[in-house]
Amino acid sequence: MAGMGAEQVADYMQGLGLKARQVSRVIGRASTTVKNRALLATADAIEAAQNQLVEANELDLQSGRDNGLDAAMLDRLALTPARIQGMLEGLRQVAALDDPIGAIRDMKFLPSGIQVGRMRVPLGVIGIIYESRPNVTVEAASLCLKSGNACILRGGSESIHSNRAIARCLAQGLAAAGLPAEVVQVVETTDRAAVGALITMPEFVDVIVPRGGKGLIERISRDARVPVIKHLDGICHVYVDDRADLDKAEAIAVNAKTHRYGVCNAMETLLVHESIAASFLPRVAKVYAEKQVELRGCAATCAILPEALVATEEDWSTEYLAPILSIRVVADMDAAIEHINTYSSQHTDAMVSEDFTRARRFLAEVDSSSVMINASTRFADGFEYGLGAEIGISTDKIHARGPVGLEGLTSEKYVVFGDGHIRQ
Amino acid sequence: MAGMGAEQVADYMQGLGLKARQVSRVIGRASTTVKNRALLATADAIEAAQNQLVEANELDLQSGRDNGLDAAMLDRLALTPARIQGMLEGLRQVAALDDPIGAIRDMKFLPSGIQVGRMRVPLGVIGIIYESRPNVTVEAASLCLKSGNACILRGGSESIHSNRAIARCLAQGLAAAGLPAEVVQVVETTDRAAVGALITMPEFVDVIVPRGGKGLIERISRDARVPVIKHLDGICHVYVDDRADLDKAEAIAVNAKTHRYGVCNAMETLLVHESIAASFLPRVAKVYAEKQVELRGCAATCAILPEALVATEEDWSTEYLAPILSIRVVADMDAAIEHINTYSSQHTDAMVSEDFTRARRFLAEVDSSSVMINASTRFADGFEYGLGAEIGISTDKIHARGPVGLEGLTSEKYVVFGDGHIRQ
Repeated sequence: MAGMGAEQVADYMQGLGLKARQVSRVIGRASTTVKNRALLATADAIEAAQNQLVEANELDLQSGRDNGLDAAMLDRLALTPARIQGMLEGLRQVAALDDPIGAIRDMKFLPSGIQVGRMRVPLGVIGIIYESRPNVTVEAASLCLKSGNACILRGGSESIHSNRAIARCLAQGLAAAGLPAEVVQVVETTDRAAVGALITMPEFVDVIVPRGGKGLIERISRDARVPVIKHLDGICHVYVDDRADLDKAEAIAVNAKTHRYGVCNAMETLLVHESIAASFLPRVAKVYAEKQVELRGCAATCAILPEALVATEEDWSTEYLAPILSIRVVADMDAAIEHINTYSSQHTDAMVSEDFTRARRFLAEVDSSSVMINASTRFADGFEYGLGAEIGISTDKIHARGPVGLEGLTSEKYVVFGDGHIRQ
Repeated sequence: MAGMGAEQVADYMQGLGLKARQVSRVIGRASTTVKNRALLATADAIEAAQNQLVEANELDLQSGRDNGLDAAMLDRLALTPARIQGMLEGLRQVAALDDPIGAIRDMKFLPSGIQVGRMRVPLGVIGIIYESRPNVTVEAASLCLKSGNACILRGGSESIHSNRAIARCLAQGLAAAGLPAEVVQVVETTDRAAVGALITMPEFVDVIVPRGGKGLIERISRDARVPVIKHLDGICHVYVDDRADLDKAEAIAVNAKTHRYGVCNAMETLLVHESIAASFLPRVAKVYAEKQVELRGCAATCAILPEALVATEEDWSTEYLAPILSIRVVADMDAAIEHINTYSSQHTDAMVSEDFTRARRFLAEVDSSSVMINASTRFADGFEYGLGAEIGISTDKIHARGPVGLEGLTSEKYVVFGDGHIRQ
């Protein structure tokens, strides 16, 4: 595989695409029972193959160390017992979720006498491109399978041995349910040209879900000839209104920033109404100081908090993913909304306020995939929203927006019932 | 305008895009009352300006005749009194539709204590590209306005005078409601480069809706850097099962083909179960003969209908848009589904059958944007489906599928309510 030329890679990927397209009809009409059986049998196969998985993973870790991967990458690459346990739980949880496929909604009679409704259906073939995190292979495969889609999985090249071992478990699970092995295909070549091919086969692939760094996702979005479900940035805001309950505001401002730093739904900029800035900023800054969060403020902020660095224009559009927070004092809610609609990445933005009319306006006027009142941005997550699973968070407006669960991997078709009805 | 160079056209379009993006926030939060006022005031303005509209249209018709436009194009270009009346009715109907924006669904409490729901929001800025049909200017503008979107309208260059006159009426309507004129912008240059610019400004335009011939739509889809809501072909099928009520089958087969020929939801291929072909085909062929529909059949069809021409492989994937019908005799429903999933353009496909279990399977297994049992494919239409309006029919699976009404021009964001909730 390693020695393929660009043309061979393209041929190989076309082959995967064609097979995926063919079996997509089979998985698309598979019953809930059959799909769940495949998920549970995959869990059993992984449980039985734990030693082989760890061995295969050790090969990846070894060459990762040899190739100088950093500690964070090696950590994501590792299949620890806890992570394998997480894979098993994930599979069983997805099996327990409601099957979205075939659900018919809004079926109603129309004046012509026909009945019209909408039936949920799979998208068809989903291509998933991700970094060297072998547990994502299982997670992505399980969500595609449950939503009736065939998938082609392209994980980072550093995880190739682990992914092949996992692919064997998935194949066993599919076989146990009588489903074709090609329902889940793991790309076997580490050649980068495979990604280029995968994202330019609209005849075989219906949607691409990239998961990883911003650079990867930008490149894929730019070059794809297929729709992409993606988010690039999480530049999330919390606006503390002058009608806020300052205890709630403090709890939310601290949680949104410090609960976890490296996540897309962490707050990066805190906006504070000018009339409460002098009272609120010092108390919250005290907590940030304890947690060693670096503060970068506008002039008004720095006047109140001498320890804060001066924020530059660039700070307002930076996703720190680190213990750094930018702070801006604003004249009122309108100025906060204006700031958010200018600098936000349209991921998640929150207001803390007890004012009903302002809450109503904030919800309507902030143009982000999640808009919150009196809650931490950290809640923006498929599990917290009750979706039961999450393939990613979309900051686009087309198709899926916000946390994307099984429903985001589906579409709806119209179904029409008549009794010989014809159009007059 | 006519003398602009390519760079000037690009600058001009960027200017339209920037203005559209700016005012999209204003129209996005406009109340239902304000939007309806703009729609009704536009109708009044058009009614008052009928003579000017006809005069402007006469300029277009005159140069159309001078430039040798064919009769069909001149017909679509003409603003007849009936068509102006249709524009007024359309505006008033759209004003009467429910406002989709701001609707919140599925708001529920989750175990963490937060409430999560989904709020319907505008897409932002919509670019519409269409042929020289000035009434589409009003129709497209009204749907974008009601759904809270700013729009940039690029009609065919032959209708430029008519479109400018209509744009003045739209500006009056917007002004009467206190809305900025840039909510609806009509592209003032006839330069073709304007289309290229419009479809490659993802920073300003959220979605493109092309309406027109297949060539135009293919070109736009290929070159766009923005999502496109489109349909290319309407290769629709009716399958007559051996368990069909043949009276219903005849009515549907005749209606689906002959009600109108040049429409995307007309049947192009009739599939007939082999065990009823000998009884069904002669009776339906008799009606087609009366209506002078040319028949092109498979070998089995030609054996039953000597008057039928021999269908080639190409016939199965041809959208005739004409009094021509291809006919194929199939072994059973599975063969019919196989044929449909191979050759259909995924627009609309119907089965005629009294069999419950087969109906259930046909609905699940035919992968088209509308799937029908015992009804004519001609029903695939936004008005017939009760959407109240239609911007087009999508044969894609991402975002909108099937007839696209106001909802297809919107998205949903998550709204989250808490009481100071933080993530544990």
